[in-house]
Amino acid sequence: MRQVTHTLNTDTHGPGLYDITAAVVNWCQKQGMQQGLLTLFIKHTSASLTIQENADPDVCLDLQDFFARIAPQNGPYRHTCEGPDDMPAHIKTALTQTQLTIPLQQGHLALGTWQGLYVFEHRNHRQNRRLALHLLGE
Amino acid sequence: MRQVTHTLNTDTHGPGLYDITAAVVNWCQKQGMQQGLLTLFIKHTSASLTIQENADPDVCLDLQDFFARIAPQNGPYRHTCEGPDDMPAHIKTALTQTQLTIPLQQGHLALGTWQGLYVFEHRNHRQNRRLALHLLGE
Amino acid sequence: MRQVTHTLNTDTHGPGLYDITAAVVNWCQKQGMQQGLLTLFIKHTSASLTIQENADPDVCLDLQDFFARIAPQNGPYRHTCEGPDDMPAHIKTALTQTQLTIPLQQGHLALGTWQGLYVFEHRNHRQNRRLALHLLGE
Repeated sequence: MRQVTHTLNTDTHGPGLYDITAAVVNWCQKQGMQQGLLTLFIKHTSASLTIQENADPDVCLDLQDFFARIAPQNGPYRHTCEGPDDMPAHIKTALTQTQLTIPLQQGHLALGTWQGLYVFEHRNHRQNRRLALHLLGE
Repeated sequence: MRQVTHTLNTDTHGPGLYDITAAVVNWCQKQGMQQGLLTLFIKHTSASLTIQENADPDVCLDLQDFFARIAPQNGPYRHTCEGPDDMPAHIKTALTQTQLTIPLQQGHLALGTWQGLYVFEHRNHRQNRRLALHLLGE
Repeated sequence: MRQVTHTLNTDTHGPGLYDITAAVVNWCQKQGMQQGLLTLFIKHTSASLTIQENADPDVCLDLQDFFARIAPQNGPYRHTCEGPDDMPAHIKTALTQTQLTIPLQQGHLALGTWQGLYVFEHRNHRQNRRLALHLLGE
């Protein structure tokens, strides 16, 4: 068994879900493993990871709206020094994932038909988000 | 060290938490490992995974009610083409887990006394849910 | 490749986020691995794990307040036999993490600059919380 790591950079331009499925799947397949375990880890606390439907783009927009309603920018926050979008970003990160682990079976990630991998950006301004990828297997 | 994978199918009949602890524990123990890492991955975006108290069944009902309040079927959603329960199902999935990873120690999963593994079904109609299981260890 | 496990005990004294970054990092570094995968698993259903900003302590207080608003102690719960803070604790656990997995690269956990590891205590009284740690690598 062997392991390999990688850093994936994603540019974001405002709140929303950014599909990273192809980038992750391509990197995995280049490692030439048949069976293993992939871990994605986002190195930030104001952007997160989620697995969601990749068929109807309205799902991603509705998700974005839901999280904006549940953690509004005008909430009663102490932490306002980094702008009105920062504390809601931390809350949205806490409510979703910083890490995802996915089995690799017969050379393919075990994603269901409608599952896509997304970086969920919660800040208003442009960001460069870094993900650590770790693949273990053979 | 070696790895083994499995597909677990669970039938659901409406919203709620379905206990899969015994099925997962039994499969793990059959692999004859003493130390390792188990990953459960649900291949859907309208059902999810959670670890919750397995003592008082009211906890599962209260959880189901909480998620129905926070993501109601009559919310202001764009994505309504798959029925009024579909977009709330995606939201509830984003708020809980698509994947769980649990250490195996001395031949047993490191679950606490009151921890049970659940498939959290969010759709109204009957479904067959597929989980990928991956166990690594020796 | 080899694996090692550990139990980490954390005392808590009321709701809030307890920083366990140093304890986890120290244990990891003692194992002398360069590349691997660390899994933290909390063996409870009324306390959870989260990765959050470790710079401004107001972020942790705002997070605690947010979760108290979204899952109030006076909610319409069936499960009240363990006190008014118990069902909200299960909800807050479902909304955050029971498990975190983090790659180890070049001898260091792949945490971003501002990422800290926290036990999120949801109960009112003092507790001793147990975490299973699992590190795999070489």
